[in-house]
Amino acid sequence: MIYITRKEHFNAAHKLFNLHWTEEENRKAFGKCANPNFHGHNYEIYVTIKGKINPETGFVMNLFDLSDILKNEVVEHLDHKNLNLDIEYFKTHLPSIENLCVYVWNILEPKIKEFGAQLHCIKIQETDNNFAEYYGE
Amino acid sequence: MIYITRKEHFNAAHKLFNLHWTEEENRKAFGKCANPNFHGHNYEIYVTIKGKINPETGFVMNLFDLSDILKNEVVEHLDHKNLNLDIEYFKTHLPSIENLCVYVWNILEPKIKEFGAQLHCIKIQETDNNFAEYYGE
Amino acid sequence: MIYITRKEHFNAAHKLFNLHWTEEENRKAFGKCANPNFHGHNYEIYVTIKGKINPETGFVMNLFDLSDILKNEVVEHLDHKNLNLDIEYFKTHLPSIENLCVYVWNILEPKIKEFGAQLHCIKIQETDNNFAEYYGE
Amino acid sequence: MIYITRKEHFNAAHKLFNLHWTEEENRKAFGKCANPNFHGHNYEIYVTIKGKINPETGFVMNLFDLSDILKNEVVEHLDHKNLNLDIEYFKTHLPSIENLCVYVWNILEPKIKEFGAQLHCIKIQETDNNFAEYYGE
Amino acid sequence: MIYITRKEHFNAAHKLFNLHWTEEENRKAFGKCANPNFHGHNYEIYVTIKGKINPETGFVMNLFDLSDILKNEVVEHLDHKNLNLDIEYFKTHLPSIENLCVYVWNILEPKIKEFGAQLHCIKIQETDNNFAEYYGE
Amino acid sequence: MIYITRKEHFNAAHKLFNLHWTEEENRKAFGKCANPNFHGHNYEIYVTIKGKINPETGFVMNLFDLSDILKNEVVEHLDHKNLNLDIEYFKTHLPSIENLCVYVWNILEPKIKEFGAQLHCIKIQETDNNFAEYYGE
Repeated sequence: MIYITRKEHFNAAHKLFNLHWTEEENRKAFGKCANPNFHGHNYEIYVTIKGKINPETGFVMNLFDLSDILKNEVVEHLDHKNLNLDIEYFKTHLPSIENLCVYVWNILEPKIKEFGAQLHCIKIQETDNNFAEYYGE
Repeated sequence: MIYITRKEHFNAAHKLFNLHWTEEENRKAFGKCANPNFHGHNYEIYVTIKGKINPETGFVMNLFDLSDILKNEVVEHLDHKNLNLDIEYFKTHLPSIENLCVYVWNILEPKIKEFGAQLHCIKIQETDNNFAEYYGE
Repeated sequence: MIYITRKEHFNAAHKLFNLHWTEEENRKAFGKCANPNFHGHNYEIYVTIKGKINPETGFVMNLFDLSDILKNEVVEHLDHKNLNLDIEYFKTHLPSIENLCVYVWNILEPKIKEFGAQLHCIKIQETDNNFAEYYGE
Repeated sequence: MIYITRKEHFNAAHKLFNLHWTEEENRKAFGKCANPNFHGHNYEIYVTIKGKINPETGFVMNLFDLSDILKNEVVEHLDHKNLNLDIEYFKTHLPSIENLCVYVWNILEPKIKEFGAQLHCIKIQETDNNFAEYYGE
Repeated sequence: MIYITRKEHFNAAHKLFNLHWTEEENRKAFGKCANPNFHGHNYEIYVTIKGKINPETGFVMNLFDLSDILKNEVVEHLDHKNLNLDIEYFKTHLPSIENLCVYVWNILEPKIKEFGAQLHCIKIQETDNNFAEYYGE
Repeated sequence: MIYITRKEHFNAAHKLFNLHWTEEENRKAFGKCANPNFHGHNYEIYVTIKGKINPETGFVMNLFDLSDILKNEVVEHLDHKNLNLDIEYFKTHLPSIENLCVYVWNILEPKIKEFGAQLHCIKIQETDNNFAEYYGE
């Protein structure tokens, strides 16, 4: 069993704001992340898959294919977008890095399977100091 | 003459959109950077000052003071903000990294002088691949 | 189960020197890390916690709280210090990155629990080329 | 149980080309990685070992020893080489990062054991965006 | 006058070997960089241009255009190639980072001019520890 | 004229403390950098030289030679040392990054000349956020 990882990135705006809470409750929970007009990040996304090495290619899965899936199914939809306003999922889920990981996992997991490999981990880095990881369970 | 540099960062939303142009003209010039609901970045800002070494401290200027000025005069106002909506200057100037450099230079240049040092360069990095530098002229 | 990680850093002096050994034995085991007058590092510390996502916040645990705990309970005590001379624990344990991980784990583990989350890993990086990880067992 | 990691690097040329396939099949599977005259990378190699802390040294294993093993047994043989032409193993295995991990594991695993520690993971990074990890099974 | 920089990268094989010298002379001058079967690098290339800010766009020059020029005129030709065997210029010039900078300058300088901007610097990084810069004179 | 840069690093302890000042004056000027038992850093040192390309080697100066000079004349003396206690120069000059740059310039400038090249800049980075540069005048 070998693990391979592909990194891509996207730039997006978001805010952390619970619509069922008051302004003050949001400020208390999320600080300046709740600022009304949004802020943004350079997000880095790491997708790790696992599987056996195919002796004919030396690959678990072709990293070009993995990169294509990641770009077409995820980056294309999130890049240069406002997560709160433009992405359906984040109308009912706060766009935290934790929820972003789950969102990406749910999109990629079936796609990776079609290539005979297995999704292992989604890691999303929001700043140099903060990241989240999700292993699907 | 010695040059010293302090780096700080801020996270902000912006879009590149010229209000005197049509949607289509904006799309042509700015691509997805013109997306209506904004996107965002982790901005890194490098301030370089120059001066003589004070033999009593070994410093051109105390880096704590430089960091404080940078945080109080710049980062505080830009961090977790929407550059287009929240910052007066960017209502009449597009929030490109070029204009961001000029904006920060104009704020910091007189402040650095009060400390007997001289502002040399403002460098702002928007992504791993893009940055701008301004030397004040 | 989601994992989130917060990075902080501190700068400290240390040396690796076993007081029960001769100068020569220390030199043999630790090389120039045993130099008598200390040397130092920029330490980077990564704290990973795990837990369920709170649907109201999108968080496993508020990263501001995690950052505060890490700064108040760890960074505050180690930053700009001499690990051998200033930190009680390292009078009886060598200040290796392995022992630093255990030291930080023991401090943070009960604090994280108070927030309903679970400490998963302490990673400490001493140089670009060396780091240690501890999972509490 | 503590995990420690040492990073080293080497620069090498390679191509991905299955000798049992036609030019066109290779191009389809490997894209420009199949270019006939080779290309190359700055490879970063991370070796993680695990074990108990020796209370006399604070070490799981001396990182100088780990670095020496890694340099003498791996880096020395791969650095500034052509993986396809100069390394016996890659005459029968494609020099993908997956196979590189297995190759390095097989060399280091018995060497680490001689020091009373246990090899945990080989991670090899080929570009900023691609890496593989192998845990020996 | 503002300076903006765009970074791109390419992966290539090369060796440093003066065809007019003996094997031994090459070994003495270039060490393992003269190994016969080539080695390779992940090259990072930074292109800095200078000019006035266009008030309608906030740009000195559109970074998408700069990126396109750099990709089409340079990266496309060097990426996944063998500099010594595949690039005409390096049949008569050694593929050092110094000569790479001059080679790239000569290609880009007239292209940048067509966009009304001015090429300021080509910087090429071969490893974490080595880079060259060329300002055109 | 081409500029080439070589990076090396060293780890050292230091404190910023003016012996002619009171404890309180030191605390006011240097904050926790004045802590009595020292702290430390991973220093990165960049040496930039300039010159013409030698057409026989493609080099301004052999980077192996530059690296050797830097290691033998600078790193060897500073690495794993206490700058205040172990280095003569810092008994009369505070070990700030500004003074470190001047100290390294004075050592390297005549050595580089012997190789027919010219020292252009010494840059020393103390933390991710702070660095100094010296151009010899």
